[in-house]
Amino acid sequence: MSSPLPKSYGLVLFPGFQALDAFGPLDVLNVLSISHPLSLSILASTLAPVPTNSPANGKLSPNFGESVVPTHTFANPPADLEVLIVPGGFGLRNEAVVEELAQFLKGAYPKLRYVLTVCTGSVPLAQSGVLEGRKATTNKKAWVWATSPFPKVDWVHKARWVVDGNIWTGSGVSAGIDLVLAFVEEVYGAAKAKELTIGIEYDRHEDPSYDPFADIWKVTE
Amino acid sequence: MSSPLPKSYGLVLFPGFQALDAFGPLDVLNVLSISHPLSLSILASTLAPVPTNSPANGKLSPNFGESVVPTHTFANPPADLEVLIVPGGFGLRNEAVVEELAQFLKGAYPKLRYVLTVCTGSVPLAQSGVLEGRKATTNKKAWVWATSPFPKVDWVHKARWVVDGNIWTGSGVSAGIDLVLAFVEEVYGAAKAKELTIGIEYDRHEDPSYDPFADIWKVTE
Repeated sequence: MSSPLPKSYGLVLFPGFQALDAFGPLDVLNVLSISHPLSLSILASTLAPVPTNSPANGKLSPNFGESVVPTHTFANPPADLEVLIVPGGFGLRNEAVVEELAQFLKGAYPKLRYVLTVCTGSVPLAQSGVLEGRKATTNKKAWVWATSPFPKVDWVHKARWVVDGNIWTGSGVSAGIDLVLAFVEEVYGAAKAKELTIGIEYDRHEDPSYDPFADIWKVTE
Repeated sequence: MSSPLPKSYGLVLFPGFQALDAFGPLDVLNVLSISHPLSLSILASTLAPVPTNSPANGKLSPNFGESVVPTHTFANPPADLEVLIVPGGFGLRNEAVVEELAQFLKGAYPKLRYVLTVCTGSVPLAQSGVLEGRKATTNKKAWVWATSPFPKVDWVHKARWVVDGNIWTGSGVSAGIDLVLAFVEEVYGAAKAKELTIGIEYDRHEDPSYDPFADIWKVTE
């Protein structure tokens, strides 16, 4: 358990974010907020709603997506952020998006208590330099794209999630749920993590080395 | 496989919806939309962004939530809806919300090809009368609250999800991911369901009778 318990959470959003990368962890934290006085800031480039289907990414259908409302811009973040969550998604195939997030993360990280990435959310954190010399993991299907530009990161090939100091990195998409439940267990205690897990009727992976997807996607040393 | 394949999806939202109830299924469908030309309408009482933390529900922290932008109101839904998704959430403890959803569902159901509920999303569908004489399931922690007003529904106590005709009902929260993957398998084929499952690195439950949570929450016949 951490003392004092963190209260101020932030979520970084960008057009083309992967919905479950964000809403897996957020759903768990939404329920945690029933018993703990948490706050959430949603940060984006502007205050316009942020869509899951980015027009800049032709892969996603322009007619199927969801838009989430930010509360702050990267230029004017809240001063007291303690925990920052960074989802991945196809929108990160746009280099300007990665660079904007990386600049924000570079400035924000020294003041944070924890940073959590899910899926290719590791890419802007790697681009910021924060992951240099650190153990981290990322999406297994996108492994080569996500890791090859960052040889100074100690990428862990087979992992559901990886913890290195205050940096928690998750594997692809649904791994974010296991990541955040492990984080809740570490910070708020095992009883709370169990309560949240059975509350959302989730069959949790508690072993961070669980990773059949590394083999499925042929991610090797 | 269904022919022709459904293209027009709708999501019903209300203040205090459970984020993962909606975004588990939606994330899978977002990725499906890369290969299939789907559209999504997001329906709510008004076009104002819909928050996960309803002010009408004191359980959820007013400072921790996410707001999603609707595309249509219940009064003016798209004419061509084929598949409707109904999430649950604490916001349904407000009877006026349940009644508004029930009235919409009663009118919409006869024109739909499929309706999918997750968690207590079964409650407004039961209230609409559509579930009478049908097999259905719901959240296990909220079982008594969700089922006892609707004795004419054939509630299935132990189930990850239940299919009765064109009505697919899921158990609590994360069960929505297994529900939608089973739906994709039925409608779009097993190969597509497997592709989406490994793409989101999900350890899918393929057995609809998988349900340790019925015992955990003491749900019995």
